[in-house]
Amino acid sequence: MTQHPVEKTPLTLLGLGTMGGALARAWLAAGHPLTVWNRTPARAAALAAEGARVAGSAAEAVAANSLIVLCLLDDASVDEVLAGTDLAGRDLVDLTTGTPARARARAEWARERGARHLDGGIMAVPPMIGVPEAGGYVFYSGSRDLFERHRETLGVPAGTTYVGEDAGFAALYDVALLSAMYGMFAGAAHAFALIRKEDIDPASLAPLLADWLVAMAPAVHQTAEQLRSGDYTKGVVSPLAMQVAGTPTFLSTAEQQGVSPELLSPYFALMRRRLAEGSGEEGLTGVIDLLAR
Amino acid sequence: MTQHPVEKTPLTLLGLGTMGGALARAWLAAGHPLTVWNRTPARAAALAAEGARVAGSAAEAVAANSLIVLCLLDDASVDEVLAGTDLAGRDLVDLTTGTPARARARAEWARERGARHLDGGIMAVPPMIGVPEAGGYVFYSGSRDLFERHRETLGVPAGTTYVGEDAGFAALYDVALLSAMYGMFAGAAHAFALIRKEDIDPASLAPLLADWLVAMAPAVHQTAEQLRSGDYTKGVVSPLAMQVAGTPTFLSTAEQQGVSPELLSPYFALMRRRLAEGSGEEGLTGVIDLLAR
Repeated sequence: MTQHPVEKTPLTLLGLGTMGGALARAWLAAGHPLTVWNRTPARAAALAAEGARVAGSAAEAVAANSLIVLCLLDDASVDEVLAGTDLAGRDLVDLTTGTPARARARAEWARERGARHLDGGIMAVPPMIGVPEAGGYVFYSGSRDLFERHRETLGVPAGTTYVGEDAGFAALYDVALLSAMYGMFAGAAHAFALIRKEDIDPASLAPLLADWLVAMAPAVHQTAEQLRSGDYTKGVVSPLAMQVAGTPTFLSTAEQQGVSPELLSPYFALMRRRLAEGSGEEGLTGVIDLLAR
Repeated sequence: MTQHPVEKTPLTLLGLGTMGGALARAWLAAGHPLTVWNRTPARAAALAAEGARVAGSAAEAVAANSLIVLCLLDDASVDEVLAGTDLAGRDLVDLTTGTPARARARAEWARERGARHLDGGIMAVPPMIGVPEAGGYVFYSGSRDLFERHRETLGVPAGTTYVGEDAGFAALYDVALLSAMYGMFAGAAHAFALIRKEDIDPASLAPLLADWLVAMAPAVHQTAEQLRSGDYTKGVVSPLAMQVAGTPTFLSTAEQQGVSPELLSPYFALMRRRLAEGSGEEGLTGVIDLLAR
């Protein structure tokens, strides 16, 4: 591995949990001079052997470079770690997981201290970091100038997707995608539970399930078009009335298989509510109106 | 279009709703001599113009061919439509949507009447019928011999996937996959609701959402392996304890965006219950044990 440290942007990383450690290794492998600090010194020591400079305190780490990346446990940890550090003139990139409101407040907090701020939401698990073909990426929001200035450096551990000047948008996109994922996992859990008492190998269901979910995921494009136009009947092939008529089959099957309907019934309840409003010709998009008023 | 009616298996189709009509057109287009019957005669008349023979009664339609395909509203309609028909020696293929228990009872019912029985669960919407590249298919279960005998004919409107001798399995696989899909749609609905009050075009979220769901769907393979082995910690990169620690961010974000958490919280509640049982090192598979005991 040829390193060209002089050409690569030096940076500081605060927080060396599993994700922070993976980020650190990706930057070191790419030849970026890296200063690290972690509350528990042992993790930093391991990285020293791989070329990282270990700062004795968070203040020292912040003083070492103008680009400071945070990957801490939560927003409260950011307060604790940065207390007493001089942030004037620093470019803060906060990859700590949090809500949009926290990210917006943190951006304001940074501004008051003379720092610039970019929030990031990581769409990857640690093993995907530094492995471009794994497809992981990070949402960024806040100053576009700041994003452009550090785009190359930020792109080293994972792909980058800039989603707007509003500091809260990276967290919002992050939470939106992960929330949708949990919904999909809930649906898959119900599916596996249904076959539990049968002589069916879960590994024979899995490929059918994965292929079906992959085939159905693009339905979100139609949802988006309907939300945009306000016409929830546009392009509908399975009207809500028909889908609601089918729900007893799903609930009876769950009962027959000894499976609690608790992960399915809240969505079915919203479908029924929407139908009761006289929206039988629509698809499923109207459910969104019932969630967010 | 060259037709070779003599070479193609003749068959009868009972039920000409949107799905039945699509099936009829696919068989006619492929040159199968087709006899149809529908409670509402108008739909049958339209198909006559396309080459279908229209029977005057269900009994006449059943008498016309040995292969009888049913695509009716529900299982009760099957009883009504087949009352007074002579099913002896007939091969019944029931594509009517229903539960596994209904399919098993219907197989027994057919056997008592001297007929053979195959149950089918259609994984497609009508516009995908007769369009192989659309990827729709039908689950079949029941007699393998019967499936093999009619495989080619059944494969005309959509792909075929045989899932076992148990007559209930086609319905079970069908319901399992569609249940998982509703879970995914519920998650996507929550995601779209989250951005509702922001200046974010739903069509800019949609591709990110679709790609993310597609990227995460293969996680079901790990779930299946864990269910098989009984070791729910195998290959876990995001332990349950860490994921549960992240749930307040999802719920707070929903609250900030004015979105009801009702589609997310049941899954989070199960995650917390599993964690409370001391399973923090596992991933999410243990939730399935809480659903099906």
